[in-house]
Amino acid sequence: MPDTRRPSAVLAERVRAGDVRALARVCRMIDDRVKGYRELLRELFPHTNKAWILGITGAPGAGKSTLTDALIRQFRARDERVGVLAVDPTSPFSGGAILGDRIRMQQHFEDSQVFIRSLATRGALGGLSRSATDLICPVAAWGAGVVLVETVGVGQDELEITRAAHTTLVVMAPGLGDDIQAVKAGIMECADVFAVNKADLAGADATVSDIEQMLALGARPSTSSLRHSAATVAANTPAGHWVPPIVKCVATRGEGMHDLLQKLDAHRRWLEQTPEGAQQRAGRAHAHLLQTLQAALADELLARLEPEIAEAARRVEAREIDPYSACEDLLEKCLIGPR
Amino acid sequence: MPDTRRPSAVLAERVRAGDVRALARVCRMIDDRVKGYRELLRELFPHTNKAWILGITGAPGAGKSTLTDALIRQFRARDERVGVLAVDPTSPFSGGAILGDRIRMQQHFEDSQVFIRSLATRGALGGLSRSATDLICPVAAWGAGVVLVETVGVGQDELEITRAAHTTLVVMAPGLGDDIQAVKAGIMECADVFAVNKADLAGADATVSDIEQMLALGARPSTSSLRHSAATVAANTPAGHWVPPIVKCVATRGEGMHDLLQKLDAHRRWLEQTPEGAQQRAGRAHAHLLQTLQAALADELLARLEPEIAEAARRVEAREIDPYSACEDLLEKCLIGPR
Repeated sequence: MPDTRRPSAVLAERVRAGDVRALARVCRMIDDRVKGYRELLRELFPHTNKAWILGITGAPGAGKSTLTDALIRQFRARDERVGVLAVDPTSPFSGGAILGDRIRMQQHFEDSQVFIRSLATRGALGGLSRSATDLICPVAAWGAGVVLVETVGVGQDELEITRAAHTTLVVMAPGLGDDIQAVKAGIMECADVFAVNKADLAGADATVSDIEQMLALGARPSTSSLRHSAATVAANTPAGHWVPPIVKCVATRGEGMHDLLQKLDAHRRWLEQTPEGAQQRAGRAHAHLLQTLQAALADELLARLEPEIAEAARRVEAREIDPYSACEDLLEKCLIGPR
Repeated sequence: MPDTRRPSAVLAERVRAGDVRALARVCRMIDDRVKGYRELLRELFPHTNKAWILGITGAPGAGKSTLTDALIRQFRARDERVGVLAVDPTSPFSGGAILGDRIRMQQHFEDSQVFIRSLATRGALGGLSRSATDLICPVAAWGAGVVLVETVGVGQDELEITRAAHTTLVVMAPGLGDDIQAVKAGIMECADVFAVNKADLAGADATVSDIEQMLALGARPSTSSLRHSAATVAANTPAGHWVPPIVKCVATRGEGMHDLLQKLDAHRRWLEQTPEGAQQRAGRAHAHLLQTLQAALADELLARLEPEIAEAARRVEAREIDPYSACEDLLEKCLIGPR
C-alpha cells in the first residue's frame, strides 16, 4: 500500500525515529529555506521538549571548541545523544574547511549518536542566528538529549542565539586582554555558568576575579539599560537566586570537566524545579518569540512593500524625507487600525 | 517678544548653529527616548547631508581607539569639525569610566570642534546600534564634517551601524590570532578600507596577505549567502570597481596616517562621483531604512500586542503551539489584507 501521507510528515517521522540522514536532509532544507520548510518545523516542534539547549560562547582564543569537544565526551559517557550547531567562524567544527584548520573532532563524525552541523560557511552574518535557532528544532526532535550551540562574538546575533538556549556557558581564558571587556557588555545578559579555560596558565585567578567583579557590578542592571526595548527587558529578567558559578578547567586535558558538567546540570535542575528558573525560561521564550515575530514581519513587509521601501530609501538618501516619517508612512500602508 | 516656536524647533536650531551644549542635550534626549525625540530627529535630519559618516571597526586589540585618535588629529589639521560616537566597550573613549582605562584623548574633550559621545555604558547590547545610528543625525546637523563611529565585534549590531556609514574602515593588527577569523565573517560585507595597525610588529606583512586572500575569496559572494534576506542582499551589493585598499600604519606614532586619510578620501570621492559609488550608497541606505522600519514595527507590535505575545510565548514554551504558527496568528491580528 502506498504511503499517502505528505512528504514532510514522512520525513519528520524518520527524523523522530533517529535517522541521521533524514536529519541532515531536513537541516539542509531548513537552511536553504526550501518551500515547505515551515511545514517541517511545525511537524517537528511538538517533539522537541526533551532536549536541553546549551549555548557555548566567549571570546575568540578562549578555547571554546576544545571545551565543546570535551563536553561532547562527557555527555557521550552518560550515553546521551548529542547535537552540535557551530555558529563560530573560528571553530574547527566549522572553520576548518575554509582556512585549513584541522578538524580535531573527527572521531565524533564517526559516532552515530553525535550530529554536528556548521552554519559558519555561508559568509553572511545577518541570517545566522535565525538559521541556528531554526535548526535546534530538528536536532532536538531527532532525539538529542543535549544540543550544544557554539557561537562567538559580542553582538546581536549571539544574544539572539542565547535566547534560544536553556543554559548559556561563557568560556573565558587568561591573557586575552581586551577581549574580556569586549565580551563583558554582552555577558551579563546571558551567562548562566562561566568556565575559565586554560586554567594552568598564569593569570587564571585574575580572570576569575575579573568575572566575580563583573558579576558584582552587573548584579543590579541599571534601569536605563532596561527601559527601551522589551526584548532587552525579557532577556534581562533577574535570574532570582541563581548566581552564575565560575569553574576553572583545562579542556585539552579534560581537567575540571566533571565539575563543569555538574554546574551545568545544577542550572538545568534550577530551571526545571524553581519558580525563578521557570521565570527565566519564560522570559527567554518571550524574547525568542518576539525575535521570530520580527523576522516573520520583515519577510512579510519586504514581500508586500518592496518597491515602496526602495522608493522611500531613495527619498531619504536625497534628504527629501526623514527616515522616521518614511517609516511611519510605510507602517500606515500595512498595519491595521489607527497608529 | 517671547519665542513662540516649539521647544524642539528652538533646540534643533541651537544645534544647527553649532552649540555643543545643545547637542549634548539632544543626544541625551534621543538616547533616553524622551517624548518628542522623533520630532527632534525630524527637525534635524534635513541638515545632515554634509557630514561624511566614517565607521571604524575591527577586532579588540587592533588599536582602533589609538587610530581613531590619530584620525581626529588629521581631520582637525584640515580644520574639520569632528563628531565621535564610540560603541566599543573596549574603547578608552567609553570604557574608561568603568574599568579604569586612562582616557588618552582628554585633549579632544577640550577642543570645542570635537564632540565625543560614548554609547557603551548602558550595559545592554540590543539597542546600541539603534541609538548609535540615531545619534549620527544630531552630530551631523551640528556641523560635523566627519562623524567617526567606532564599533567592535562581528555581530549584527556592528553590521547595522556599518549600514549607516558612508565609508567603513576595518582595523587589523598582526598577532591577533583567531581574531582575524572572527572578524572575517563580517568583513566582506562592509570593509571599504583596511588599516593594518602596529605595522612595526613582526607579522604585519602576513596580516596584509591574509586580508588580500580574504578579499580574493570574497570577491564573488556565493549566491546562497545572498538568497535569504533582502537586508543582506542590499549590504552585499557588489562594490563595482572599488577594491578595498590596505594601508599599513603605526597609529601611536602617527605613521601611515596621511596615506590612510588619502585612501579614505578616495573612497569618499568614489562614492560621490561614480555610478558604482552611488549604487553602494543606495544599497546601504535601503538596508538602513529597512532596519529602521523593523525597529519601528517591533515597537508598534509590542505596544499593540503585548498580552497576546506573552500568551503565545507561554503556549510555545508549553509546546501547545509551534512558534511559526504562533507568529502567523499574531501577524494576522495586525497586518492589513490577506497573507
